[in-house]
Amino acid sequence: MSSVLDFTKALIARPSVTPDDAGCQPMLSERLAGVGFKSETLVFEEVTNLWLRKGTQAPCIVFAGHTDVVPTGPLEQWDTDPFEPTEKNGFLYGRGAADMKSSIAAFTIAAEEFVTQHPDHKGSIAMLITSDEEGPSVNGTVKVCKALSARNEKFDFCIVGEPTSSKTLGDTVKNGRRGSLSGHLTVKGKQGHVAYPHLAINPIHVLAPALQELTQEEWDTGNEYFPPTTFQISNLHSGTGATNVVPGTAEIMFNFRFSTESTPESLKQRVHAILDRHHIEYDLLWTLSGEPFLTETGALSQALCQAIKDETGVKAELSTTGGTSDGRFIAKICPQVVEFGPINASIHQINEHIDLTALEPLKNIYRRTLENLLLN
Amino acid sequence: MSSVLDFTKALIARPSVTPDDAGCQPMLSERLAGVGFKSETLVFEEVTNLWLRKGTQAPCIVFAGHTDVVPTGPLEQWDTDPFEPTEKNGFLYGRGAADMKSSIAAFTIAAEEFVTQHPDHKGSIAMLITSDEEGPSVNGTVKVCKALSARNEKFDFCIVGEPTSSKTLGDTVKNGRRGSLSGHLTVKGKQGHVAYPHLAINPIHVLAPALQELTQEEWDTGNEYFPPTTFQISNLHSGTGATNVVPGTAEIMFNFRFSTESTPESLKQRVHAILDRHHIEYDLLWTLSGEPFLTETGALSQALCQAIKDETGVKAELSTTGGTSDGRFIAKICPQVVEFGPINASIHQINEHIDLTALEPLKNIYRRTLENLLLN
Repeated sequence: MSSVLDFTKALIARPSVTPDDAGCQPMLSERLAGVGFKSETLVFEEVTNLWLRKGTQAPCIVFAGHTDVVPTGPLEQWDTDPFEPTEKNGFLYGRGAADMKSSIAAFTIAAEEFVTQHPDHKGSIAMLITSDEEGPSVNGTVKVCKALSARNEKFDFCIVGEPTSSKTLGDTVKNGRRGSLSGHLTVKGKQGHVAYPHLAINPIHVLAPALQELTQEEWDTGNEYFPPTTFQISNLHSGTGATNVVPGTAEIMFNFRFSTESTPESLKQRVHAILDRHHIEYDLLWTLSGEPFLTETGALSQALCQAIKDETGVKAELSTTGGTSDGRFIAKICPQVVEFGPINASIHQINEHIDLTALEPLKNIYRRTLENLLLN
Repeated sequence: MSSVLDFTKALIARPSVTPDDAGCQPMLSERLAGVGFKSETLVFEEVTNLWLRKGTQAPCIVFAGHTDVVPTGPLEQWDTDPFEPTEKNGFLYGRGAADMKSSIAAFTIAAEEFVTQHPDHKGSIAMLITSDEEGPSVNGTVKVCKALSARNEKFDFCIVGEPTSSKTLGDTVKNGRRGSLSGHLTVKGKQGHVAYPHLAINPIHVLAPALQELTQEEWDTGNEYFPPTTFQISNLHSGTGATNVVPGTAEIMFNFRFSTESTPESLKQRVHAILDRHHIEYDLLWTLSGEPFLTETGALSQALCQAIKDETGVKAELSTTGGTSDGRFIAKICPQVVEFGPINASIHQINEHIDLTALEPLKNIYRRTLENLLLN
């Protein structure tokens, strides 16, 4: 059986830029068919999804991930071809090396090893793989979860293989993610000549006091698992280009990353209250990208952290920082969801890579987790 | 001799869009050569300027103005051809009808009438005409003033023929203009991911408290002649377009219209103090477009206001509101500068026009002013 390195390289060589799976998922089906996994492909629009499962009993542990990768960026800046996996200086280079083809290869082989060594294990093992996590992600994991839920297919534990490690393999496990709520605010003023400000209404001036409040507001203080909710303005544009014209509107894009201490409704209400208190005339369009999810300490996090400790000696820290992941969709149908994978320092960048010495240990950590949960 | 209407129409028919004089100035020289005016053309780069003078003695009264007009805008929106002066419904339509070919025609004929009726008048009469007041205006009046100053040519009174009337001919005389000081501010932050705000520095957030102060600051309370200094932000831009990226910089363009109660130095110092007090990292580029000028009540304003009263019965109000004019250049070499012309409601717009019944009275007002100053 080929090693994690070989399988990772085979996956990297497929140029699976979102939403193109480029033949990655069939490689998993093929590999695990030999050890009793049934596979099902679910296509939604341009996205290819794979559901693999061995066994029908509880507890069911699912590995979730994506075969799609982000675009390469300027090819001339890569030292090696992003779709020609290259071993160099102790690292494996290629797009997807860390995010997240190595995790997929590692778990596939971990599952293969586990069922080969323990053919009578209890429970079930499954894999939920999509070809769109990096993009719009409206036809990926979210729709697979809806389909599984509709047919009453249940599972108990989920490990999302996103790269979570920070400085060393195993130092970070994500046991939740913050919600993401965005606003598109248009402040309405009245265009005019800079020399006649009393005949105009400058939307920038109108916004200024509310802007000060919004950027300084303490939304919540977080809790045991989550850092405080944050608010950031990503874009602010107002002006005609002319330097003697007071503009008529100002457009602001902002984003909340919120903890379980706030809800979308409470945040919206507070933003509206600030804007209204300053008598601003505005339109405000809200978009909820994702609700927070949290898995408190329990069987899954204990099994995974123990596996990490036993394999690497590292004591993993539970964290909810960073961006969003498909874990938020799975959390709606699975009571315990955590995320674990290799070091994420180079993801989405030029010359993405993974430490060659991390590959086998990563696979072992996944396999030990299966052992901790499905053997007794 | 042709009337003000005929002469105005002849000037309008010349398509003299900045900086093209299109033959307007020679029409003035030709007309006034017959009554003793010496003419001198001063060309600076693409701009044509005319200096006409009769007499060498003090007091010298100068009429200042421009033959250039702003572009027409979309031709299909004009009811008549902007360069085919058309009388319709009691108005004369055409580009420059109000700004300011009617004033030029009116003063030329007023001067002609005056010297014909009073060949032994005291003092001198002059005209300073440029083909770039509406554009960059760096090779127009400002350079003519420098040239006259360099050869010690002095004058005592100046009427700038810009259209100053508001509702009825004669209701407004400008006896000064505010200064204009602009700033181009770049706030420096540090780009990053919206989910990791502690690793970024959001320049919008950094700017917010200072923005509040700047927009609410009382710069001065004005004085007897000037309204309070105003501050307006015309453009504010920050953001990469992406909604999950904290931008690295924010750019702000702002403008002061300032009275004689503030100076460029005091305003700059106060803006820097506000930015520095908030520990903002920034670059700030200043541009002084013009200093304020003021002509307190005196011989010139009295002569003009009396002329307006005698001709129309209207009591003119002295004002310093509105934008800038070439008066600011002339005020450096002439102790008394005022501005007076027809109703300005349609200037720079489609279907610019002047009331036909305003033309002869305008000319009479200018002539009466000459009589008030140069006869006794």
